[in-house]
Amino acid sequence: MKERVLTGDRATGKLHLGHYVGSLQNRVHLQEKYETFVLLADVQALTTHFEKPDLIREHLREIALDYLSVGIHPDRSTIFVQSMIPEIAELTILFSMFVTVNALRHNPTVKSESKNAGLDEMYYGFLGYPVSQAADIAFCKATIVPVGDDQLPHLELARKIVRRFNELYEPVLVEPKPLIGDMPRLVGTDGNAKMSKSLGNAIALDSSTEEIANKIKRATTDPARVHKNDPGHPDICPIYAYHRAFRPDESPEIREGCEKGTMGCSACKARITSALEQLIEPMRERRSYYAARPKAVDDILMAGTQRARGVAQETMKEVREAMSLNYFD
Amino acid sequence: MKERVLTGDRATGKLHLGHYVGSLQNRVHLQEKYETFVLLADVQALTTHFEKPDLIREHLREIALDYLSVGIHPDRSTIFVQSMIPEIAELTILFSMFVTVNALRHNPTVKSESKNAGLDEMYYGFLGYPVSQAADIAFCKATIVPVGDDQLPHLELARKIVRRFNELYEPVLVEPKPLIGDMPRLVGTDGNAKMSKSLGNAIALDSSTEEIANKIKRATTDPARVHKNDPGHPDICPIYAYHRAFRPDESPEIREGCEKGTMGCSACKARITSALEQLIEPMRERRSYYAARPKAVDDILMAGTQRARGVAQETMKEVREAMSLNYFD
Ligand code: SF4
Ligand code: SF4
Repeated sequence: MKERVLTGDRATGKLHLGHYVGSLQNRVHLQEKYETFVLLADVQALTTHFEKPDLIREHLREIALDYLSVGIHPDRSTIFVQSMIPEIAELTILFSMFVTVNALRHNPTVKSESKNAGLDEMYYGFLGYPVSQAADIAFCKATIVPVGDDQLPHLELARKIVRRFNELYEPVLVEPKPLIGDMPRLVGTDGNAKMSKSLGNAIALDSSTEEIANKIKRATTDPARVHKNDPGHPDICPIYAYHRAFRPDESPEIREGCEKGTMGCSACKARITSALEQLIEPMRERRSYYAARPKAVDDILMAGTQRARGVAQETMKEVREAMSLNYFD
Repeated sequence: MKERVLTGDRATGKLHLGHYVGSLQNRVHLQEKYETFVLLADVQALTTHFEKPDLIREHLREIALDYLSVGIHPDRSTIFVQSMIPEIAELTILFSMFVTVNALRHNPTVKSESKNAGLDEMYYGFLGYPVSQAADIAFCKATIVPVGDDQLPHLELARKIVRRFNELYEPVLVEPKPLIGDMPRLVGTDGNAKMSKSLGNAIALDSSTEEIANKIKRATTDPARVHKNDPGHPDICPIYAYHRAFRPDESPEIREGCEKGTMGCSACKARITSALEQLIEPMRERRSYYAARPKAVDDILMAGTQRARGVAQETMKEVREAMSLNYFD
């Protein structure tokens, strides 16, 4: 059987360079080797944003543009909308029968995310989102799911759910393997461990030349480098992290120049600015191509959703058979 | 707007006289006045019987025969299968976003039922079944839901969920009114407060003449009546309860005869046996008609499910619009 990859994003915000390094870049490679499904997770976004569905609607299209701009190609990847696959809801309901509340409550990500969101009372749907993720993975029989370390417990639970289903009924579902990225999280321009739009330390994928330059200009560097020739500590500098992420071959040279004090921060920043411009410029172009053609984007999403739906219907047919719910066949 | 009734049963066991008195009889009347939807709740049955889907499959058809045998008429009532309406699953997922775990945990029925079932770890789907019930009611915009006292907290939660949805998005859903039955629960033939198949104290709707006679013959009566002329206490006797339920006009006479010791238990039992035979005989006939025509029963369920599905699709269209999830309209 051919390997199938499932990836995707919650439709709660535009993507930025952190996402590019952490996942998008990888997806562009994966789609060359594997059948790739890319999920626009609007239902999952509702677990935290049910009061703002308009925001989800808006972000859904922005993320679709993000995908297309980085080179996720509709001919190679099936980009689809979660809420338009009713079979995911059906599978979620069926899985929820045999997953205990405890298994969900003790999931470390649910635990910490519920703390982050400041919920004093957890919502039922939020508590269950690992079940819904299991359904996302199972409906398309994904064999490979790229995950960050923090998502690993969810995938472990998804694997357990699939195994349990296969034991209880018939082995029609596929247990997914995690593909753990080796790329560390990208730091923010302010040196914060996490690049995040809400912290204002992110570089958007549709940044203009000027925006890139300004973000880098204002970015934190090693505070020990007061004078040009002061020796620096690249490991605490976000600019060095960007060199490593986007120009890994040049990063030893940057490290040396910084540590020896032979390269000034301005020069160092100028180099990464130009590297980022080279990276983002073609993204900007593809983005403006698609942004000017909303109908084409809609067509891509509808076609992807239709393809995913077909797969979902086949899987649900097997699931109904396995569970003896195929009353009239 | 025309009133619409939603009723139904978990597909976990054949129905008996207790169900007839408590709900089926009423449904036969309701279908004359209102548009009636009757739910074969196989998904809800899975919350407690996920390990026995074959049993659910079997009971689903038996219950359909029960319905048809008591006179729920496919031309007047829409009998449909829950698992075949994906929109119910979709609505359940959407509702689950804004229902807290606490609201569910503290629901008295969930509390006590989880105790009865002996679960040391509650299942996520079981915890959420009031959400799924809210979706059952909301998808078909039922205005009236007949409930027993024990189901009232669920209906209250369903009303809250519908109100909350309407507040959060657009007022497209309908808040259902409870229709509380005035018929007390039917006692078992052993005098137990509840008639139940698993207690062996139930009279099935498809009982033969002989089975009815035997069940009544073996039924408990007032133990104070050793001799024929001993005065009895009808209020503690299940036979009297059956007279009240099935021959209310004759029950004062029975009470008098029992209390005065002018009527023996055998005569009293003979009268109710014949009354039950008169009640069940036409049920038996209708049942054997349909039991011999499984294809006709399938057609009835498929037609009902299709009709319900049409209503569900219309509602989901409105729900998607209200929540701005109608991306491509
Ligand atoms: S030279 Fe480069 S890596 Fe070193 S502190 Fe300056 S900006 Fe950072
Ligand atoms: S006479 Fe009838 S009501 Fe009275 S104890 Fe006997 S069976 Fe029961």
